[in-house]
Amino acid sequence: MTPTDTWSVGARGDRLRGMDLSPLEALTTPAALVDLERVEANLRRVAAYSRQHRLHWRPHTKTHKTAELTALQLAAGAVGVTVATPREAELMATVSDDVLLAYPPVGASRLAQLMALPRRTRLMVALDSVEALQGLSHAARDAGRTVGVLVELDLGMRRVGVQTPADAVALAHRIAAMPSVTYRGVIFYPGHVRAPVEQQEAAVKEQTARVREFVDALAAEGLRPEVVSGGSTPMLWRSHEVEGLTEIRPGINVLNDRNTAALGACAWSDCAFSVLTTVVSTAVPGQVVVDAGSKALAKEEGLAPAGGYGALLDRPELVIRSVSEEHGLLDVSNTSWRPRVGDRLRVVPNHVCAAVNLHERLHVLRGDTMTACWPVAARGW
Amino acid sequence: MTPTDTWSVGARGDRLRGMDLSPLEALTTPAALVDLERVEANLRRVAAYSRQHRLHWRPHTKTHKTAELTALQLAAGAVGVTVATPREAELMATVSDDVLLAYPPVGASRLAQLMALPRRTRLMVALDSVEALQGLSHAARDAGRTVGVLVELDLGMRRVGVQTPADAVALAHRIAAMPSVTYRGVIFYPGHVRAPVEQQEAAVKEQTARVREFVDALAAEGLRPEVVSGGSTPMLWRSHEVEGLTEIRPGINVLNDRNTAALGACAWSDCAFSVLTTVVSTAVPGQVVVDAGSKALAKEEGLAPAGGYGALLDRPELVIRSVSEEHGLLDVSNTSWRPRVGDRLRVVPNHVCAAVNLHERLHVLRGDTMTACWPVAARGW
Repeated sequence: MTPTDTWSVGARGDRLRGMDLSPLEALTTPAALVDLERVEANLRRVAAYSRQHRLHWRPHTKTHKTAELTALQLAAGAVGVTVATPREAELMATVSDDVLLAYPPVGASRLAQLMALPRRTRLMVALDSVEALQGLSHAARDAGRTVGVLVELDLGMRRVGVQTPADAVALAHRIAAMPSVTYRGVIFYPGHVRAPVEQQEAAVKEQTARVREFVDALAAEGLRPEVVSGGSTPMLWRSHEVEGLTEIRPGINVLNDRNTAALGACAWSDCAFSVLTTVVSTAVPGQVVVDAGSKALAKEEGLAPAGGYGALLDRPELVIRSVSEEHGLLDVSNTSWRPRVGDRLRVVPNHVCAAVNLHERLHVLRGDTMTACWPVAARGW
Repeated sequence: MTPTDTWSVGARGDRLRGMDLSPLEALTTPAALVDLERVEANLRRVAAYSRQHRLHWRPHTKTHKTAELTALQLAAGAVGVTVATPREAELMATVSDDVLLAYPPVGASRLAQLMALPRRTRLMVALDSVEALQGLSHAARDAGRTVGVLVELDLGMRRVGVQTPADAVALAHRIAAMPSVTYRGVIFYPGHVRAPVEQQEAAVKEQTARVREFVDALAAEGLRPEVVSGGSTPMLWRSHEVEGLTEIRPGINVLNDRNTAALGACAWSDCAFSVLTTVVSTAVPGQVVVDAGSKALAKEEGLAPAGGYGALLDRPELVIRSVSEEHGLLDVSNTSWRPRVGDRLRVVPNHVCAAVNLHERLHVLRGDTMTACWPVAARGW
């Protein structure tokens, strides 16, 4: 794609193509930017880590919701994709034949969307209830498909997942006994672990112990899991220390964000996503207002002590202190630097998954040259 | 529109039309629902209030971002529309010839979008800086248009707006002196007033006093404002007590939400927007997990004491205690009621503007009958 081609994508395209401005300057802000060199470095790092530790890398694509970035992940060595919604499954199935829906497909409509995936798609689903299992089994039977199933375990996040090894065994037995579904193993998400990487010793030990409890109970019943799927971005680089793990599902790490950097799970220079903003007001002393608010950055709290809703890519010490829908209030009370109305700044949001979901396309840059424009095509359900 | 017609709208259309389910049951959740009877009642109430107090009603359309709901507001007596983004201006200009952009259009691209509005569109713009004014004046001159300008005042929110009467006078003089722009008056947003309606006495007095300071200073310079535009949904019903006000710009009140009800600015039964969700997990004791999380409800804090991220339309005492992207954790620890996996529940979010912005269409109901499907066409910029 040449920079000009990118203007054929997206609603503003035709109008901007004529303008006497360089592509980056021509963008209406707020605009979502992706630094392709940083993405490629992030992909190389996780691919090498997975190879080194013989872990299957199945990236969670909810972070970027684009087929294009998924294709890059697969080219870099991902074994398949993880998705959370039917829409993500539909889009990612166009580039991957191996899809894990890490979310129970409950309801006729979600099941219909799932069963309408291409026949070539190898589908695996995570669930924690007999109700979800029965719905899936019946839909798969009616569609003439076979779907792999993972038992969702709660390792302490207390969001979803069976609570005890006995519950896991009971559900695994039901899976094994139902038509058109195949028991494949277990899955968990250690999303409750928000400790900095160097302080995850205890979390790793606890996870290993909990996983062993579940796996031993299942093995004792002839249900040894072939797949043990885990791994979040905050704990990504210690995944190999969790004994028995076969697969990791990091989402954020392909783009990274401010909270991930704060946890030490990436360097600030690994942040490949930012929101290009324009200064729109400097009327109130001590602050600068940019045109990226909660509808462009998402209202996701920053980790202490810095807090806020994002920070400048080039000056990470300068924080978006508060947001309303279309306003971000950049705190400049501790600097003599004063951007002027019309200046453009890049903001790294706290949580990239939530921010990407607010944009209809990602503008992809090599250095400052626009090389592509990727539609965030899997938004919605 | 018949219920069947609604399926021709939106990505799922063709697939669902064939399904042996009633429209509402056929929806993939989470789905945004609008109760048309409540919308109509909300419209009648604000239209009557504006008429009674001789206030121009210029609803802020960022709340719903649909041309269809804007058309209903105009039919009910709105004098025009308020918008925050170029995309909102483009969409709303298809149904209204009187558009107020309550946001400074800074940057060549935003200005180009604005100047590309139909010639018939009477455009007014709010700003607080000479830089924004000069950009607008030059763009308007080049486009052969004349644009009305309002001086944005800061009445205490400390987000945008000139700080002193002297600053307001200086900027108004600059506007009067610039080509292709016309000085029309002043605008402010009392978004900092979050007190319950019955405790807004002081806020009303303070607002009146501050507005008078600004207006008197402008009048003394021959710059008496023709337009004094204010009014947020929390203070909506006391707008007539703010002396000198000529126009109100409520956004939320057409749909309302949980935080607006908590402030007493609407009754719970005035909440016309909800998110239809499906129970997907009950594995963790004391909670029920629904498929509406931060990507369907928005992560907007609920007002104290209840907090949380939303509440059930039919059981407002039951609160979504926490959200992740696709999970909402409904707290059922204080009730014996236990919805089952597969049950569908309607959740009223805390902040409707942020929630609507996450959905690509609004499913419009009379009672339980789908009567229309409105694309949320003004998302993005």
